[in-house]
Amino acid sequence: MDWKSGIAEAAERIAGHVRRTPACTLDGLGLAYPVEVKLEQMQHTGSFKARGAFNTLLSGPVPQAGLVAASGGNHGAAVACAARALGHSARIYVPEIAGPSKIALIRDLGADLVIVPGAYAEAAERAAEWQASTGAMQIHAYDAPATVMGQGTCMAEWEEQGLQADTVLIAVGGGGLIGGALGWLQGRRKVVAVEPERAPTLNAALRAGAPVPVEVSGVAANALGAKQIGDICFGLARDQDIGSVLVKDDAITAAQVTLWKSARQLVEPAGATALAALLSGAYVPEPDERVAVLVCGANVAPDPLAG
Amino acid sequence: MDWKSGIAEAAERIAGHVRRTPACTLDGLGLAYPVEVKLEQMQHTGSFKARGAFNTLLSGPVPQAGLVAASGGNHGAAVACAARALGHSARIYVPEIAGPSKIALIRDLGADLVIVPGAYAEAAERAAEWQASTGAMQIHAYDAPATVMGQGTCMAEWEEQGLQADTVLIAVGGGGLIGGALGWLQGRRKVVAVEPERAPTLNAALRAGAPVPVEVSGVAANALGAKQIGDICFGLARDQDIGSVLVKDDAITAAQVTLWKSARQLVEPAGATALAALLSGAYVPEPDERVAVLVCGANVAPDPLAG
Repeated sequence: MDWKSGIAEAAERIAGHVRRTPACTLDGLGLAYPVEVKLEQMQHTGSFKARGAFNTLLSGPVPQAGLVAASGGNHGAAVACAARALGHSARIYVPEIAGPSKIALIRDLGADLVIVPGAYAEAAERAAEWQASTGAMQIHAYDAPATVMGQGTCMAEWEEQGLQADTVLIAVGGGGLIGGALGWLQGRRKVVAVEPERAPTLNAALRAGAPVPVEVSGVAANALGAKQIGDICFGLARDQDIGSVLVKDDAITAAQVTLWKSARQLVEPAGATALAALLSGAYVPEPDERVAVLVCGANVAPDPLAG
Repeated sequence: MDWKSGIAEAAERIAGHVRRTPACTLDGLGLAYPVEVKLEQMQHTGSFKARGAFNTLLSGPVPQAGLVAASGGNHGAAVACAARALGHSARIYVPEIAGPSKIALIRDLGADLVIVPGAYAEAAERAAEWQASTGAMQIHAYDAPATVMGQGTCMAEWEEQGLQADTVLIAVGGGGLIGGALGWLQGRRKVVAVEPERAPTLNAALRAGAPVPVEVSGVAANALGAKQIGDICFGLARDQDIGSVLVKDDAITAAQVTLWKSARQLVEPAGATALAALLSGAYVPEPDERVAVLVCGANVAPDPLAG
C-alpha cells in the first residue's frame, strides 16, 4: 500500500472539512526540555477522528441507508459530524461505558443514537447487524485504509507546520492515529507508541508477534479501549520496529493536570496519555533528542460547562 | 513614544521567558465566516500578562525589597511567575473578588499573598503603602510603558505567525493588551475594542473625551474590571480612532460555551469577551472583512480539575 500518496490525497480531499489544528512548543511542563505539541483535540468533535471519517465519506459513494458506526464515543461523534456535514444519515451504537459527555456530544450532532449496555464489543455486534439488515455503510474506527489515511493527514500537517522533533509520542488505542503517522513518516522520525498499562493492545501484539485480544480498563478505556490492535497499525509498527511504552492510570491523570495547569489545555485521559510517558519517565529522551507529543482528544467527563 | 521599536526590543528581551503561543483559524463557530485566533491563554500563568511582567523586570534593576503588585488575579500571577523565574521576591495584594482559583494560582507561584477585602481599589491602596514603606518595585497592571510594550509583543508575534485579518478584536480592561496592539500596529490593521457592558472603561472614556471612572461588575469583572482606562491606552485609542463595542454578560458566557464546545478551549469570561462581539452580532464584519480574535485568558472559576 502506498501510504504516503494515499495520505497526501486524503489531505487534499478533506481540506475545508477539517481544521488545521495549531502546533506550538511548550516549556514549563516540569521537564528539563521543551516539548512540541499539536493540539489536535481542537479538531471538529474534539478529537482527530473527524479526519478519518471525512476521508472515508469523501472517498466513494455512500448508500441511501447512510452510515453506521460502533464507537466508544470519539469515532461515533466524528462519523455523526461528517455525515451531517455531507448530508447523510448516521446511526451510532455507543457502549454505555462511553459516559454522558460523549453520548451528549453524539446526540447533539444529530445522529440516530443507540446506547448499548456493556463495552465496545457489544456495540460492534449491534452495528454489524444493522449494517447487514439495511445496507448502511460502516466506517471502521481504526482498521480500514481510508480511516488510517485520514488520520495520517494529522502528521502530514504537523510536518508542514514545521515540526522539528526527532521523536513523536502518540497514544494508541486501535492504532488508527499512529498507523497514519507511521504510514506518512516511513521511518523519517522515531515514533513511540504510548498506551495505558490497562489497555496495552499494541504492546501485547508486539510481544506476541501478532494482534492478540487484551483486557481493557482504566481511565482512558472509553477512547483507547480497543480489544485488539488493528492489523494495519500492527503491520506498520512491526515493520518499522517502533518503540512501545506503557503508562499507569495515575500518570495519565497527572499529565491531564499538568496540561491544564501549565498550558490551560483541558484534555481527556487519552489526550494526555502520550505526554504521560515523558512526565512519568516511562520514556526518557536522550540529551539531544527533540520530542513531540500529539494531543489527540479533549472530550472530558464530566463536561466542565454542562449544567 | 516609539512604541514599535519599544515592542520589538521587548520581544527580544522576553524571548525564552514567555511562550510563543499558537495561532490558528477556526471555522464551525456558528458564524458564516472563519475566525483567526491566537491562544494567548496558553501563556505562562494562563494570560498574556506574563509578557508585560517579564519585560518590566528585565528592563532595569529590581530593588532588594523585590516586587509588589495589586491585582484581580492575572497580573498578580504574572508578577509572581516572573519574580520567581528571575529570583526576586513578590508581595501580591489580591482583592477578595479575584476568587479562589486565581488566589490559588498566585499562592502556588510562591508569592507572598495578601487577600484584601473588597475590590481592586482597596488592594491598590495596600500595595502603594507597602511600596512606600519598603521600597519594593510596583509593576503597574496596564498603564506603564514597559507593561504595554510587553503586552504589545503578543500582536507582533501574531503577525510573525502569518496573521491575515483585516480586523482584530481585543477585550479591554485597563487597556494594556489593546494598548500594546495599537502601539505595534499603528493603524496597519483595524482594531476593535470589546468590553462588557458592565465594565466599559474605554467606551466611556471615548465618549467623554478623557478617562473617567466607571462602575464595574459582571462575569468578567475580576479580569476586565479596572475602574478607569489607562492613559496610555486611551491616548492610542483616541489617536487611532478605533472601534469600541460593548457586550452583555450573557453573550460572554455563551462565547465561553462556544469556544469549549466547538474548539475545546476552556477560557475565563475575559478570554471569551472579544469573540462574544462576533457571536452576538455586536460587531458584524463586512462581507469581505477578515477577522481575528485574541483569546487572552483561561483562569476559570471553578477550576475544572480542583479537588
